[in-house]
Amino acid sequence: MNRCLVNGQVTDMIRCDDRGLSYGDGLFETMAVVAGKMPLWQLHMDRLQRGCGRLKLTCPDMDELQTEVAELLQGVDRAVIKLLLTRGSGGRGYAPVTSGIPTRVLQCHPWPELSRDYWETGVKVMFCGHRLARQPALAGIKHLNRLDQVLARGEWTDPDIQEGLLADTEGHIIEAVGHNVFLVNGETLLTPDLQFSGVAGVMREYLLKLVSERGYAVQIRPLSRQEVLAADAIFLCNSIHGIWPVCELDGKHYSRNPLVCDLRDTIAQVIPYY
Amino acid sequence: MNRCLVNGQVTDMIRCDDRGLSYGDGLFETMAVVAGKMPLWQLHMDRLQRGCGRLKLTCPDMDELQTEVAELLQGVDRAVIKLLLTRGSGGRGYAPVTSGIPTRVLQCHPWPELSRDYWETGVKVMFCGHRLARQPALAGIKHLNRLDQVLARGEWTDPDIQEGLLADTEGHIIEAVGHNVFLVNGETLLTPDLQFSGVAGVMREYLLKLVSERGYAVQIRPLSRQEVLAADAIFLCNSIHGIWPVCELDGKHYSRNPLVCDLRDTIAQVIPYY
Repeated sequence: MNRCLVNGQVTDMIRCDDRGLSYGDGLFETMAVVAGKMPLWQLHMDRLQRGCGRLKLTCPDMDELQTEVAELLQGVDRAVIKLLLTRGSGGRGYAPVTSGIPTRVLQCHPWPELSRDYWETGVKVMFCGHRLARQPALAGIKHLNRLDQVLARGEWTDPDIQEGLLADTEGHIIEAVGHNVFLVNGETLLTPDLQFSGVAGVMREYLLKLVSERGYAVQIRPLSRQEVLAADAIFLCNSIHGIWPVCELDGKHYSRNPLVCDLRDTIAQVIPYY
Repeated sequence: MNRCLVNGQVTDMIRCDDRGLSYGDGLFETMAVVAGKMPLWQLHMDRLQRGCGRLKLTCPDMDELQTEVAELLQGVDRAVIKLLLTRGSGGRGYAPVTSGIPTRVLQCHPWPELSRDYWETGVKVMFCGHRLARQPALAGIKHLNRLDQVLARGEWTDPDIQEGLLADTEGHIIEAVGHNVFLVNGETLLTPDLQFSGVAGVMREYLLKLVSERGYAVQIRPLSRQEVLAADAIFLCNSIHGIWPVCELDGKHYSRNPLVCDLRDTIAQVIPYY
């Protein structure tokens, strides 16, 4: 971590009685910085506000937040900004009654330097054994209760495997550990419905708008493991990596798909990978 | 919070990149201190170890932990000790690969001064609308992902209501927000099965042993809302409050039950409420 602000003050420490630590009572956003700017800032802030509504958290003042981000980004060209927003300090007890002062943490991380192959050849993916819990009250938002992802990511250490696909407890494929997932069949895109589990990624949202502008058909619905394996192509997306084609899933190989390449290259104009 | 140790050092601050804050990647225990001692210490440590096994966390050295607790408790007669154990500092990314140094936080909180009526007359309880997610991989252990409890506890502000009963997404009654629940029918005790959701409380465990020694029948199985409402008596338990009889649930009144009073008084010899 390069630099960190907590409620606008330069520090990388937070109080031990913060409800973010005690209960995971908060939200986060992980945002790409490109040429000193955050191209998806507004989508991140929209999701943060939706999360605040769901958890009944006071949303930070957007102007203040933008000023703090600008301070953190002085002289920075590429980076990852992580914002955490918690319900603030509190005593023992689950009751969400605090001083009313949420804690906002802004961290500036170095841009991850990854192999270009992940974008060009694609990534190798496995199915995780861990199943996501179904919780409509928390589905879609990017809250701080992430043990599902930690347990799933703990299933492999092979550096040749870049991601794991996760099903929920009913067996529906929902997402990858740190990416959303799309299937391609002909000129139709399919992506899992996230009513019961999963994070509604900012890049997923950006893409859904893009593909409908391009006139592709999109289906958002529950997807089975069989449907995933039978797709013409699969790709993963998030707001840091843009689009990663999947070249191998559970031993099955996928060939280069022109639609995926087109979308990847379009997104790379927003979040370049080279 | 009176006093706090982080990894043995006197401080009430923790690093912002701690995985406890980032992902709720850790466990906690809330322990009663009576006459400077912790009567249920061993049961808490047993559960902590089970949690460490489930999350593949390195368990702290028990002798070291005991030394730190003794330091924190110097001159303290009654208190609540909260222990948090996290996977330690880490960068971005869910992969549970860290420096290998977990963070342990020990907080000493004042003993909560509550009305004796909660033990003697009983407490008023409601059914929460929020449903607990079903996640067998996390059920039973006391992990730091507690948004289910925060959302449920946010459902009421009426100070006359002391607790809320929670069902899982299938409608089975699992627990109260901060207590386990038992039903009494004649000389039989019933308590929900916690295979899919809920925290296996240390007081619940202590009680299960006690009631079997007393020769009462105990059933641990899924319980419906109807069964809860039809019970002769209901009580709540946790390691700080011991046993609270329920005097009212969702408008239904329950009369004093000799079995509940007997158990409450036996537990009060371990964790006195007066």
